[in-house]
Amino acid sequence: MDFQYSDRVRKLIDQLTDFMEEVVYPNEAVYMEQLREGGDRWQVPPVMEEMKKKARQAGLWNLFLPDSDHGGGLNNLEYAPLCEVMGRSAIAPEVFNCNAPDTGNMEVLERYGTEEQKQRWLRPLLDGEIRSCFSMTEPDVASSDATNMETTITRDGDEYIINGRKWWSSGAGDPRCRIAIVMGRSNPDAPRHEQHSMILVPLDTPGVRIERMLPVFGYDHAPHGHGEIVYDQVRVPRENMIWGEGKGFAIAQGRLGPGRIHHCMRLIGAAERALELMTDRVKKRVAFGKPLSDQGVIREWIADSRIEIEQARLLTLKAAYMMDTVGNRVARKEISMIKVVAPNVAQRVIDRAIQAFGGAGVSDDVPLAAMWANTRTLRLADGPDEVHRRAVAKLELAEREKVIR
Amino acid sequence: MDFQYSDRVRKLIDQLTDFMEEVVYPNEAVYMEQLREGGDRWQVPPVMEEMKKKARQAGLWNLFLPDSDHGGGLNNLEYAPLCEVMGRSAIAPEVFNCNAPDTGNMEVLERYGTEEQKQRWLRPLLDGEIRSCFSMTEPDVASSDATNMETTITRDGDEYIINGRKWWSSGAGDPRCRIAIVMGRSNPDAPRHEQHSMILVPLDTPGVRIERMLPVFGYDHAPHGHGEIVYDQVRVPRENMIWGEGKGFAIAQGRLGPGRIHHCMRLIGAAERALELMTDRVKKRVAFGKPLSDQGVIREWIADSRIEIEQARLLTLKAAYMMDTVGNRVARKEISMIKVVAPNVAQRVIDRAIQAFGGAGVSDDVPLAAMWANTRTLRLADGPDEVHRRAVAKLELAEREKVIR
Amino acid sequence: MDFQYSDRVRKLIDQLTDFMEEVVYPNEAVYMEQLREGGDRWQVPPVMEEMKKKARQAGLWNLFLPDSDHGGGLNNLEYAPLCEVMGRSAIAPEVFNCNAPDTGNMEVLERYGTEEQKQRWLRPLLDGEIRSCFSMTEPDVASSDATNMETTITRDGDEYIINGRKWWSSGAGDPRCRIAIVMGRSNPDAPRHEQHSMILVPLDTPGVRIERMLPVFGYDHAPHGHGEIVYDQVRVPRENMIWGEGKGFAIAQGRLGPGRIHHCMRLIGAAERALELMTDRVKKRVAFGKPLSDQGVIREWIADSRIEIEQARLLTLKAAYMMDTVGNRVARKEISMIKVVAPNVAQRVIDRAIQAFGGAGVSDDVPLAAMWANTRTLRLADGPDEVHRRAVAKLELAEREKVIR
Amino acid sequence: MDFQYSDRVRKLIDQLTDFMEEVVYPNEAVYMEQLREGGDRWQVPPVMEEMKKKARQAGLWNLFLPDSDHGGGLNNLEYAPLCEVMGRSAIAPEVFNCNAPDTGNMEVLERYGTEEQKQRWLRPLLDGEIRSCFSMTEPDVASSDATNMETTITRDGDEYIINGRKWWSSGAGDPRCRIAIVMGRSNPDAPRHEQHSMILVPLDTPGVRIERMLPVFGYDHAPHGHGEIVYDQVRVPRENMIWGEGKGFAIAQGRLGPGRIHHCMRLIGAAERALELMTDRVKKRVAFGKPLSDQGVIREWIADSRIEIEQARLLTLKAAYMMDTVGNRVARKEISMIKVVAPNVAQRVIDRAIQAFGGAGVSDDVPLAAMWANTRTLRLADGPDEVHRRAVAKLELAEREKVIR
Repeated sequence: MDFQYSDRVRKLIDQLTDFMEEVVYPNEAVYMEQLREGGDRWQVPPVMEEMKKKARQAGLWNLFLPDSDHGGGLNNLEYAPLCEVMGRSAIAPEVFNCNAPDTGNMEVLERYGTEEQKQRWLRPLLDGEIRSCFSMTEPDVASSDATNMETTITRDGDEYIINGRKWWSSGAGDPRCRIAIVMGRSNPDAPRHEQHSMILVPLDTPGVRIERMLPVFGYDHAPHGHGEIVYDQVRVPRENMIWGEGKGFAIAQGRLGPGRIHHCMRLIGAAERALELMTDRVKKRVAFGKPLSDQGVIREWIADSRIEIEQARLLTLKAAYMMDTVGNRVARKEISMIKVVAPNVAQRVIDRAIQAFGGAGVSDDVPLAAMWANTRTLRLADGPDEVHRRAVAKLELAEREKVIR
Repeated sequence: MDFQYSDRVRKLIDQLTDFMEEVVYPNEAVYMEQLREGGDRWQVPPVMEEMKKKARQAGLWNLFLPDSDHGGGLNNLEYAPLCEVMGRSAIAPEVFNCNAPDTGNMEVLERYGTEEQKQRWLRPLLDGEIRSCFSMTEPDVASSDATNMETTITRDGDEYIINGRKWWSSGAGDPRCRIAIVMGRSNPDAPRHEQHSMILVPLDTPGVRIERMLPVFGYDHAPHGHGEIVYDQVRVPRENMIWGEGKGFAIAQGRLGPGRIHHCMRLIGAAERALELMTDRVKKRVAFGKPLSDQGVIREWIADSRIEIEQARLLTLKAAYMMDTVGNRVARKEISMIKVVAPNVAQRVIDRAIQAFGGAGVSDDVPLAAMWANTRTLRLADGPDEVHRRAVAKLELAEREKVIR
Repeated sequence: MDFQYSDRVRKLIDQLTDFMEEVVYPNEAVYMEQLREGGDRWQVPPVMEEMKKKARQAGLWNLFLPDSDHGGGLNNLEYAPLCEVMGRSAIAPEVFNCNAPDTGNMEVLERYGTEEQKQRWLRPLLDGEIRSCFSMTEPDVASSDATNMETTITRDGDEYIINGRKWWSSGAGDPRCRIAIVMGRSNPDAPRHEQHSMILVPLDTPGVRIERMLPVFGYDHAPHGHGEIVYDQVRVPRENMIWGEGKGFAIAQGRLGPGRIHHCMRLIGAAERALELMTDRVKKRVAFGKPLSDQGVIREWIADSRIEIEQARLLTLKAAYMMDTVGNRVARKEISMIKVVAPNVAQRVIDRAIQAFGGAGVSDDVPLAAMWANTRTLRLADGPDEVHRRAVAKLELAEREKVIR
Repeated sequence: MDFQYSDRVRKLIDQLTDFMEEVVYPNEAVYMEQLREGGDRWQVPPVMEEMKKKARQAGLWNLFLPDSDHGGGLNNLEYAPLCEVMGRSAIAPEVFNCNAPDTGNMEVLERYGTEEQKQRWLRPLLDGEIRSCFSMTEPDVASSDATNMETTITRDGDEYIINGRKWWSSGAGDPRCRIAIVMGRSNPDAPRHEQHSMILVPLDTPGVRIERMLPVFGYDHAPHGHGEIVYDQVRVPRENMIWGEGKGFAIAQGRLGPGRIHHCMRLIGAAERALELMTDRVKKRVAFGKPLSDQGVIREWIADSRIEIEQARLLTLKAAYMMDTVGNRVARKEISMIKVVAPNVAQRVIDRAIQAFGGAGVSDDVPLAAMWANTRTLRLADGPDEVHRRAVAKLELAEREKVIR
């Protein structure tokens, strides 16, 4: 057992941290301003492509993809602290081509895509030329239980016809977004977890209609955004099917593990930044004759935040380690555990920081309110807390079953 | 001791509830749409004035003002359940001319204003013809300790000159907003709590500049909004001083008591509506083969929400009762207590409802996310939780001192 | 609506408070010492009978029984603050003949007993001459669901034969304990809630065997105690049946409502005393150069404790008010609510006080550890928290059903 | 970074686990019975010495001592999972000669003792022939701030005279307890943290008087126990001074680090056992027609418990790793963090298990109530939560200071 990052990883952390300080943080305000002044919020601020170019030149590109020639040759455990650093800024992950949902979609294509699919979609995604979205969640059914899904994918000769309504297709607002991975029921008569498929749907296919972009606590998250998309008699060629009919849940299992833990890593980074912002603030702010940092309650907030972050980080790393060593499936208890812990910890830490900032905390003068809103959605996205707790308990009860006989 | 509302109050609750169902709820979407489609978000949706007219005709107007000929002749305890009903919808309080900060400002004018000030500003406020804002909080100092305030109010012959920067002047975005009550330091050499004054500043006075409107978790709260206002060599006549120089804290004490408890009453209403939305949702939504309402965890949420709301309501009523019977000053412990409890309870209840709604909960398809954001600000506005807890503890220690000799 | 106690009640509170200060508190240590030095812990310390005599002379006797000639002529709402005062000391309730389970048992006899049963058992209980126990809970089944109960009550001519094992028969250790009310299944073929009966079993009946006294977190609660009792072919005459066969649940419903709320009232008193002990302690204790009372965290504890106690008290009073005005059945949601709230609040307040006392807090130098242990059992006794939350949620869902049709 | 225990450690875990199952668990009841039936509770149940002999034969002896020829040659990280296993049973640590406070005292003697002191006291302690206690805490001052200490150690020729009152001298009740390490003020004029010394005081020295044994939530913890000891003009030879005058805080620092983390390791083990007990219980217990394990709330308890335990374990291991690699001083933030986390997590897990067990949970039929009481004291012993949070915050603020310049 050893709690030290490897030399290579520590070097990457330093490199990334420098890049954040030199390039990313100073451009956060620039990005927001370009977005505000662009007239249309659904255009990409030019500074983003400039930052991407620099990151790629610096070799800080596609670090997320384990077991692949395309990524940085890092496993999950090695990627974790880097992803954490990226999570400190809302705009950072895209700078390094490591943002959701593209990373998850790239992972799907890398693992389960045909050569042709890779050539057509994975290549430009890896190059950061196009963006993608993931159409899984539906407005009319409880997505916590994915077997509820009502979208249909019906074979018709050499084509599939897709019909359904999806929402929270994140990234769909981006003008560079070209392709959606859509999940739907293709084989209604198969066993429960083999009825669904995932299929590639170019967004310019007739019948694809983005009905609206959904706000999150008042934020539009432009130009990325969250789309409600109607798929109305959408036809795509057979070759767009990923892996094979009925493989939807198998792919989801493979896709969501890494996706979930990436979210957790980024949340640790967000929480860490919130704690830093709070710490700096309370030293400078004076009330009732002494700095806030000298008031016992504030010290409890700092201590509890550090304690919670440190534990969440260790659990994230342990989960990543297990994904690398025993595989995503065996590691699913750890993934569910950290999927519960990370957003809840981040939410509490950010909330304390907001409180320490007073009115500024709920405004956009500091990134805390935006961080909080994003964090809150992650108690729902990729499975609500309750479903993950349920999964942990189920495994726990089953393991105990084996032991006690 | 008696926990029953009076006949008169129960009749008013029924009347108000009917009005909400017939007029307010159906127009929530209309209001939002008019706002969205108006081009400029800082114009008042016409449906608001229509609703106001109906409310006034129905006698549901200015119910908030105790001990006055102008209000509904209700005391705080009687007004509490009515204010709660209004709190169920973000647009309702204004419909009944009972919205913050106008109610607080009207109370100030009624209690401490000269005849002339009443004629000029209170009259049109009571008639809902103009709106007002309250400029107390400053961006550069910790407002939790109001003695930090840096804005100056300097006597110059028959005028006062005001200089300073204020923010969170809520309501300043409204085109009907004509008048600000500004608090600042006028008598720096007086005892600590007699250095400040409140003064009336018409918004069209030269030197008054609304620099920007502050967002709250991504919401602009248009057309009401929260202004950051610079007062730059602003000159107003002597007659605009309220009550007298150095009376700022005395007025604040009188103003904030009722203002705080109104917020609490409304929060109870918001929490109650969130619980209803959640209850209705979980009955209809099915996951893992049964309605969410049959899952033990969800039942805990419902029970805990009911338990917390009921307790917060009782404490609100008790505080109101004390304000009516022993006065705002003696009731300050109860006011601080409920000021801590109400937003925290509402926040928890609304958060559970959001979780039960999944993605819809964080969007604007249900009013929960907006309610949550508003509620979160009330853990800061009118004194952060920590300052109110501090006040409760101080009183508690002092009372115990007396008992144990 | 009115939050003021009546004159009569206030006078009784004063009288009781004086009695506590003059008689009860000073004798807490005496009681403990007589118990310790008596050789056998299962004998009643003589000081108890002395205090009882004084209380009865002062007219502070049997104040608990509403709607009866035997009690103090007080309803639940009037009794609540008095019961709270008694709850401040573990030995006080018995001093005033208001201790569990005797109060509940007296209430059963008063409401459902025959003239003969009253003469034989109620009379001496009201006089404090004998004590009683209540045998409901069983070790082998989940008592949270009382229909699980396995004890049988079988008619055999003019007698009933009782067979079963009960535990947590509190008070069974007291040498004055003469009678048990035993609940068991008498009519297995009746509808689910009409299968059980309650029957009077004198403890000296052949076949009644107290197997052991159960400790609570290391406390034996002598001489009262909690018995595990085997009823082995116990025969009692027909006349000992209470109300009638199959009336067990009906009686339990009637008995447990008042019993539960009495516990809650006492818990408020215990929490109040813990807060006082903490407040006094932190003023005197110095660490890191200033009294604990000047440390922000401690002030949060004091404030939160006051806030929680005040809310719990109001909910207790509201529940009592409803029991008086609409009856125990309609008030069952409020009773369940306060049954969840009171022990949890008391537990938190006492825990904070323990922490403020350091090592003394977990010892017996202050009554906090003993209070805590007793409080902890009340999250289980008379229905665990989870069952009461479940009941609240069920009612909430049903009421909402009616509203939304 | 690597989360796998080494082969050697895994082998030891297996060996220890087997020993627990074969020897310790079956003898828990035997131990309790011998204690109960021994007449005097302050005698050692014979089964203890039998188990010790077996453990020593099996090589499971003194595993705790790092960097020493006397221990098992394990560092803190290696010892952690073994100590966790021992923590599963209240009687286990002594079986392996790894119980507090003897381990801490042995560590002091090993690190700071003279050859003679080692020969006289360390040797028999390592052999498990005698026991020891540690006299630091005093009843009259806040021990959270150790500089408050009032006991004096005064040089008088070739002797030191000790005067003072200590309590919570754990282990003092054991008839085998021969020696106390006493801390007191020897050099009142030295700098604040160099005024105190630690000195060896044989318990049979004239003037040493154990005034009473302190209960913990009703438990006497016999035969170990917690003594209140008066040191009244106690004279010991100069040679009994440890390390040197004024070295008290330096030794405490070195002693308490390992001692604290041992407590944490054991608490993880206790929490783990409580979770197992709960898991097994809820599978078998049926209420409302289905096993408790199928009720959503219970599943939340299981999941939260697993999540909390796993995080606490990782933090414990990380802290141990840091003690081994950068030393106890640099690791003090991690030690303080886990000292807050471990007892709070264990307390919550055990509390949930108690609730799942109903009445049995608060009795002694399962070890949960006793575990809970012991755990509760560890939120106070070796520094209350608040002091450790304060230490974490202080370090956090200081580190941030360095970063932001």
